[in-house]
Amino acid sequence: MRTVTKDNITDVFKSYMSKDMEPRMREVMGSLVTHLHDFARETNLTHDEWRAGIAFLEGCAAIETEDRHEFILASDVLGLSSLVDMLHSSPTATSSSVLGPFHVSGAPPLPVGGDMKRDFGGPILLAEGVVRDTDGNPISGATIDIWQTAPNGLYASQDDAQDTYSFHGLQTVGDDGRYAFTTVKPVEYTVPTDGPVGDILRACGRHPWRPSHLHYIVEADGFSPLVTEIFPDDDPYLDEDTVFGVRSDLVMSYEERPADAFPDGMVISGKVDEPFLYVKFDVILSRRD
Amino acid sequence: MRTVTKDNITDVFKSYMSKDMEPRMREVMGSLVTHLHDFARETNLTHDEWRAGIAFLEGCAAIETEDRHEFILASDVLGLSSLVDMLHSSPTATSSSVLGPFHVSGAPPLPVGGDMKRDFGGPILLAEGVVRDTDGNPISGATIDIWQTAPNGLYASQDDAQDTYSFHGLQTVGDDGRYAFTTVKPVEYTVPTDGPVGDILRACGRHPWRPSHLHYIVEADGFSPLVTEIFPDDDPYLDEDTVFGVRSDLVMSYEERPADAFPDGMVISGKVDEPFLYVKFDVILSRRD
Repeated sequence: MRTVTKDNITDVFKSYMSKDMEPRMREVMGSLVTHLHDFARETNLTHDEWRAGIAFLEGCAAIETEDRHEFILASDVLGLSSLVDMLHSSPTATSSSVLGPFHVSGAPPLPVGGDMKRDFGGPILLAEGVVRDTDGNPISGATIDIWQTAPNGLYASQDDAQDTYSFHGLQTVGDDGRYAFTTVKPVEYTVPTDGPVGDILRACGRHPWRPSHLHYIVEADGFSPLVTEIFPDDDPYLDEDTVFGVRSDLVMSYEERPADAFPDGMVISGKVDEPFLYVKFDVILSRRD
Repeated sequence: MRTVTKDNITDVFKSYMSKDMEPRMREVMGSLVTHLHDFARETNLTHDEWRAGIAFLEGCAAIETEDRHEFILASDVLGLSSLVDMLHSSPTATSSSVLGPFHVSGAPPLPVGGDMKRDFGGPILLAEGVVRDTDGNPISGATIDIWQTAPNGLYASQDDAQDTYSFHGLQTVGDDGRYAFTTVKPVEYTVPTDGPVGDILRACGRHPWRPSHLHYIVEADGFSPLVTEIFPDDDPYLDEDTVFGVRSDLVMSYEERPADAFPDGMVISGKVDEPFLYVKFDVILSRRD
């Protein structure tokens, strides 16, 4: 009889995998279990700690809903989501950043020049740019799925006072590749801390803050989809984003401009009577392999 | 501004942990995240694979109930549960083995000599032994929480046809440390394969079988509690238990004996008219540190 021991169990696990299994699955599972076992051996993981780990997963399960993605949040605060982004970022395209747990599918169309601010208070922000390929040519028909927090620091999915698609919009660019919209300047906010991920942050003595950002998913036929974020360069949390999402090419100046400099061609043009902020951010997509 | 990269993100994660945090938590989290990041870098984990991992966790969450512990099952089939057991087994005590996902708290008292077979068919098994300390002395007042599958291969919690505590009993030994009960010989069975863990087994080309066993949790004041299993030496799955639970000192001969050799002093003594199986298994507990 073969005796399983703490020293050979990783090899026994590998011997259980069929010779016929899909090679990439074998590679990923073999690496995953090797690291899982090495972690347990290296820390001499106790039964109590194992139970705490199971309780963490069960606690995430208990809080998980369509609008609350605690497993993604765990991946985010442990740096795994950002690491996967960085492993697959194209060096010639705009950097990708974390999707996060707050994206909602099905955002309503937002015409070029449209407005997401509606009646919300807070500084007006005009964001515009061009979606380009890596040669600098505009990409006609690209779509930008835009979402951000309301001035109270909450996403629509977290806030009963907002409707489902508040501060969400889907913009489709024309032949010039240009997108443009008005909104409220996003604010820094905390990831949810009332679940098991909050317990982890507290146990590590970590704060739950994310720097303020606009969040985009940019897609176009023939190009790799891009999830990214645009951060203002004066945000206090740029150096300590709790989900590790900041990349240097995503940090932009949000310039302050007088009311009379507000351009024509926007839905709210002619109605602006206060200084506004302006950010220009071109998005570069790489062609799909 | 500090730029987070795929090469420094593990160090950035560690720099986020407070100097004041509990040292063991720092050690465990640091090791966990180092291995998690190394796994992603080593496999160049893709977004699709990351999404499959999140979907696996969310799938476990969706199936998790009071009676269905999919996260524990995942830990079991990946070998983590058995590894933690082996890391903390005392070399002078009975080996521990996996708890598994089917233990139910609150089993009814089963007197020494009691019967768990009731009206179920299948070979009668008489199990007995003495609970001892590492010097060989009986441990008075030790309790054994016993559970096993019914002849159909299902635990009570999986089977509407059984009552809650079918094939579950809690025996308290006297001054002689002796436990004894009759039951049906357990059968080999498959772990549940209708959830995400079943998908993993199929993807790895692995079977879901566990060798047959009696499952015990043995506890006594002043001693480390022990979770263990007793396997018959003729089981076909001893060398390939899907949860890695078999240890050589837990494999016992289940001897066949004629009906007229059935001893006195058991609840069913005098009512046995067929050959029965007999297993003697002493349990050795180590003193709590």
